[in-house]
Amino acid sequence: MSSAEEIARAAKSAFEKSQLVPGSERVNALHAIRRELESQKDEILAANAEDVKAAQAEVSAGRMDDAMLKRLDLARGDKWDSMLQGILDVAALPDPNGKVTYASELDDGLELYRVSCPIGVLLVVFEARPEVVVNIATLAIKSGNAAILKGGKESNRTTVLLSKAISAGLSQTQLPATYIQTIQTRAEVSSLLDMDRYIDLVIPRGSNSLVRNIQNNTRIPVMGHADGLCSVFIDESADLDKAVRVAVDAKIDYPSACNAAETLIIHEKVLTTVWPKVAEGLLGAKVRLLCDEPSLSALKSSSSSIPENQVSLADDAAYTTEHLSLTISVKTLPNLQSAIEWINSHSSHHTDSIVTESDENASIFCRGVDSAGTFVNASTRFADGFRYGFGTEVGISTGRIHARGPVGLEGLVTYKYMMKSKAEKGHIVGDFGTGKKQYKHAPISATSVPF
Amino acid sequence: MSSAEEIARAAKSAFEKSQLVPGSERVNALHAIRRELESQKDEILAANAEDVKAAQAEVSAGRMDDAMLKRLDLARGDKWDSMLQGILDVAALPDPNGKVTYASELDDGLELYRVSCPIGVLLVVFEARPEVVVNIATLAIKSGNAAILKGGKESNRTTVLLSKAISAGLSQTQLPATYIQTIQTRAEVSSLLDMDRYIDLVIPRGSNSLVRNIQNNTRIPVMGHADGLCSVFIDESADLDKAVRVAVDAKIDYPSACNAAETLIIHEKVLTTVWPKVAEGLLGAKVRLLCDEPSLSALKSSSSSIPENQVSLADDAAYTTEHLSLTISVKTLPNLQSAIEWINSHSSHHTDSIVTESDENASIFCRGVDSAGTFVNASTRFADGFRYGFGTEVGISTGRIHARGPVGLEGLVTYKYMMKSKAEKGHIVGDFGTGKKQYKHAPISATSVPF
Repeated sequence: MSSAEEIARAAKSAFEKSQLVPGSERVNALHAIRRELESQKDEILAANAEDVKAAQAEVSAGRMDDAMLKRLDLARGDKWDSMLQGILDVAALPDPNGKVTYASELDDGLELYRVSCPIGVLLVVFEARPEVVVNIATLAIKSGNAAILKGGKESNRTTVLLSKAISAGLSQTQLPATYIQTIQTRAEVSSLLDMDRYIDLVIPRGSNSLVRNIQNNTRIPVMGHADGLCSVFIDESADLDKAVRVAVDAKIDYPSACNAAETLIIHEKVLTTVWPKVAEGLLGAKVRLLCDEPSLSALKSSSSSIPENQVSLADDAAYTTEHLSLTISVKTLPNLQSAIEWINSHSSHHTDSIVTESDENASIFCRGVDSAGTFVNASTRFADGFRYGFGTEVGISTGRIHARGPVGLEGLVTYKYMMKSKAEKGHIVGDFGTGKKQYKHAPISATSVPF
Repeated sequence: MSSAEEIARAAKSAFEKSQLVPGSERVNALHAIRRELESQKDEILAANAEDVKAAQAEVSAGRMDDAMLKRLDLARGDKWDSMLQGILDVAALPDPNGKVTYASELDDGLELYRVSCPIGVLLVVFEARPEVVVNIATLAIKSGNAAILKGGKESNRTTVLLSKAISAGLSQTQLPATYIQTIQTRAEVSSLLDMDRYIDLVIPRGSNSLVRNIQNNTRIPVMGHADGLCSVFIDESADLDKAVRVAVDAKIDYPSACNAAETLIIHEKVLTTVWPKVAEGLLGAKVRLLCDEPSLSALKSSSSSIPENQVSLADDAAYTTEHLSLTISVKTLPNLQSAIEWINSHSSHHTDSIVTESDENASIFCRGVDSAGTFVNASTRFADGFRYGFGTEVGISTGRIHARGPVGLEGLVTYKYMMKSKAEKGHIVGDFGTGKKQYKHAPISATSVPF
């Protein structure tokens, strides 16, 4: 048996053994892991410093970019403390399992309950940031899933020690030590992607190409987000102040986030009224505008002081590019319907916002735009698990199956049906049918399974 | 552009155009389709008779089995009438869309709603039974999804006419005529499996090999069920009468269904008490028993009149075989825990049942067995969308993602987040944070989106 198969079997077995462990013990495990991390802090940060040092050499040699180096560094700012605080925050969230979402009395004494439960074994593949090991382990333990984690090779020294602390924490509880496992090589990932018998969900957290590569190479369901091409549409009736505030915030609040706006769509009727003020706001915030012909000429005729280096003509590729920087593409369209069609064919179905004073147009936009988030007079940057009130975020899904948009702990659970007969003779299907018993289907009001 | 790509683009475009069509118009479409089918009944049944005739030649030549021939025949029994009645039944179900499942006031005047909506474009691939075209079209239209359907080539003459009737019905409504499309060739399916840009979910309805073949060849999520290896566990404290009734019903009520029991697990303490009576019930119903050593010898010492041709020793493969016939594999195990482990490693995670008088064991079984359905003193045959009270059944999913177990219309919808700011200046993220505004996250009680 390959070592990857052993890992996968151990994960499945750990998951199955954990099914009868109560939620309170999961919370104990999270506290134990936090204590282990705290007590091994010096050793972990020393290993992390070595990872950072090795990465610095790579940066100097031009083989790694500076942003990745920053993501590696666990000693930066309050990263360590917020990693540990994150464990406590997730521990304090309500248990996502055991919730009844459908209950029906099918016949006298035959009760059916649909109840939330963990998915099983998660395979999580991510890049660079070593604290993701702790984040994901925390989410998996809280939601009742076993997990196999693979980080970037740049952070191997750090993640090995983080994993040891997690195992040490688990070993103080009823949960199996193999509940959370870490692997180091791409070859192992490749083998694991074949093991749909043991692994129930793959979660890639990283680049577009990582996600697609995984989707192309597995039968196992994949939950990930490909990219974030979000847009803001300035409608005919847009309020000037709202338009400026929403467009600028959506672009500049955190340009490298997936929920930042990459495209601004201008209703042609506001080209000479609202648009120049929005442009002024963006230009003042150092944003570079890639304009189509109408928006460019409207801008030039509205003011003589356009900074030439911040404004240029867009090519077609601009509208399907995730800039992730202080650049925004600008498109002029004649009406709401064409804006909806444009967004549906150009956006990544992540989050799109309309600025409008028309309730009717707001309603049409929210229903007509086929994205995970459709907003009215609000920045696309609100698309986030914490802001939505989930307490934590597993990621943001641009898929439509299972979980869509910002995903909280709910995205890591599924459900099962439990049924119990209390009848003297049990219940059989042969007793029902034409001329025999009929199904009752009486709703039961319950928040948990009573047996 | 390939013809498959044209079909996929047309489906996506039809889906997007349909987003603003109200649910009532979908119901109108279903009634129009039913009328078209009724008015073209003679023509359709004549085409079906030709399909059946061609299939009879295949059966005679030994290239097709008799069961498939029966599945083809739309004139058999009440098949035609129940197909049309099915349309009316689905039309009368509640609209699965537009339901709010989470709503929160993030800040004064900033409201977030999670609301159910269609998934998008479905690709449904099935075998033999031509009425599935009508079933699936009905489910897709009711749930707001566009669909591309591919039936078995044996029923091509019939499905072409069924599709024409569906298009004719759609053309009397606001829904695009390309909302439901039918394709004829495997090559088209193969091309479509590549088009994750346009197709959102693949639903294979057919053999295990069909499902796996599709899973192996697409990035698009697949909702299907691989197989149905269900079991009944007769616990130490089982009531004799319940044990006999449940085991016999689970096996014989409809042996070729995926929710029929394929394995019977006997607690070793009831080998000489309950088991011989259960065996008697099964043997009396013409069931063939594939026993392990302990159950076989217990049976032989309990009675001298065991019909030799119905009882034999099981090989290992028996316990992972979906018999789909009047055959059941019998396994003896020492306790509840080993039964749970056996089921988790041998069953297909479909539906498993325990016969027990112990509330504690019932509870442990329901939580410890990792299947879509875990039942107590009830036949596995209850695992069914109609019996569960869903009014219709899209299929039964042995996957854990998105939908698990019997799937009703709910399995064909996803959700999106709609957010609206009512504030004078709209809402931006930059106003929140340390020293600034804090999120409110006040639950909103709502069943539909108020804007």
